[in-house]
Amino acid sequence: MGFRLTIIGVGLLGGSLGLAVRERIKGCEIIGCAHREKSLVQAQALGAIDRWTLDPAEAVSEAELVVVCTPVGLIETWLDAISAHLQPGAIVTDVGSTKASIVSAGERLIRSPASFVGSHPMAGGSQKGVAVARADLFEDATCIVTATDRTVPAVAEQVAQFWQTLGMRVVRHDPAEHDRLAALVSHLPHAVAAALVACQSPASIDLRGRGFTDTTRVAAGDAELWRDIFLDNAGNVVASIDLMIERLQSVRHIIADRDAASLEAWLKKQAGIRETL
Amino acid sequence: MGFRLTIIGVGLLGGSLGLAVRERIKGCEIIGCAHREKSLVQAQALGAIDRWTLDPAEAVSEAELVVVCTPVGLIETWLDAISAHLQPGAIVTDVGSTKASIVSAGERLIRSPASFVGSHPMAGGSQKGVAVARADLFEDATCIVTATDRTVPAVAEQVAQFWQTLGMRVVRHDPAEHDRLAALVSHLPHAVAAALVACQSPASIDLRGRGFTDTTRVAAGDAELWRDIFLDNAGNVVASIDLMIERLQSVRHIIADRDAASLEAWLKKQAGIRETL
Repeated sequence: MGFRLTIIGVGLLGGSLGLAVRERIKGCEIIGCAHREKSLVQAQALGAIDRWTLDPAEAVSEAELVVVCTPVGLIETWLDAISAHLQPGAIVTDVGSTKASIVSAGERLIRSPASFVGSHPMAGGSQKGVAVARADLFEDATCIVTATDRTVPAVAEQVAQFWQTLGMRVVRHDPAEHDRLAALVSHLPHAVAAALVACQSPASIDLRGRGFTDTTRVAAGDAELWRDIFLDNAGNVVASIDLMIERLQSVRHIIADRDAASLEAWLKKQAGIRETL
Repeated sequence: MGFRLTIIGVGLLGGSLGLAVRERIKGCEIIGCAHREKSLVQAQALGAIDRWTLDPAEAVSEAELVVVCTPVGLIETWLDAISAHLQPGAIVTDVGSTKASIVSAGERLIRSPASFVGSHPMAGGSQKGVAVARADLFEDATCIVTATDRTVPAVAEQVAQFWQTLGMRVVRHDPAEHDRLAALVSHLPHAVAAALVACQSPASIDLRGRGFTDTTRVAAGDAELWRDIFLDNAGNVVASIDLMIERLQSVRHIIADRDAASLEAWLKKQAGIRETL
């Protein structure tokens, strides 16, 4: 059941992946690779990887599965660095929050007899680094696997099964549809949370309750990571923000008109949707 | 140390208040009053009140402190119902999320030798009813006490001390300033969370992760309660939504322009504020 796995980037995601694989799949050898030796040493000490190297070629040359767990902005560079060193039949995937540009780069750079399929495990946290990695990060969360018409079906199936083995629910979408949906349900909440913080003054923040704390939690996330996600998925993120502005304008007018019945109906509808989650 | 306390409205807030007072202040007699006998019977069974009556006059005639814990839209009606039956020196406060109109009604209806001071304990939850009441609801949360130039300072001080005894941090603002700040930090997050739900499709919600769940948690709140809060504080809520739209438009343009430096700076700024909370 075990195989040779290479994890590129050993932060929260990569470190948790190593811990989860160790717990769920017997007999894997897990090799870590990253830019910074310090993270790799720490990941090894925490048991997330068996051994490590700073050399991309050495890291992937015997791997059956490679998972690129770096921030979105670095994934293409790493795909480029490993592409010439993969063994035949090797499968490469990633954990990036955007998919269209990454999958396009992956399919261009990773060629048969190796394969690339994009993944987006919807798991993470506002803290970063391998120190906050945990074996259960992926459990009961959703993972989107983004096969295209260039993907060999058996390869997509193997990647899907890998995430399922880690306790994830797998959903499939093509990369463009993934990016449209992720903009709405993941990237927009981040922009909204940050904009909500940007509305406050020290006096208003001083009065915060649990509602504000919950609603803005994601805004504490890593700025560089989110900059790259927003820019890589700019078209969909802009469209999502425009939709959000429309929705806010609509409720704003209902309130300004003191239209109690429409306001209650609107609030009831959203509460009903939210309660079912 | 004990005194006679009347709690009007025994839902999550009123029930939790009874449980908290029982735990923190020895020798109080706690009388419950509400429209519905069922809630009162349940509150008594849970130990939140010692005895109850459906009659407002009987409920308050011997009370030293009366706390109105009904939804915002019903507070004025209850103040009117009890005003003629208070004993000299009785202090009346409330827990409403808006203050200007409630304090205005309170000062008009509750006359010397009884007194009214508004309170807003920033505590609650998306579930309602005395069944979810808990003695620690108020602990470590903030309570705004809204004295005016018509308030006897010693009376405001007694109300502030009451909330402090329950473990709350007390902040003072006049009612208008409270409503402006509460619109930003409490009412706006609710409107934003509901609007964020309103942007989704079944396909996008299917992909939700913890970010969406956290950011929209408050949207599951009681629609009638929030309808009344939004309408009672309509001017400030509309101004807050307008500010939010401005902030969203600003980040939308930064993303549309692919302005990486401005985007990172803006995200860093909001993350920095959020992290300190």
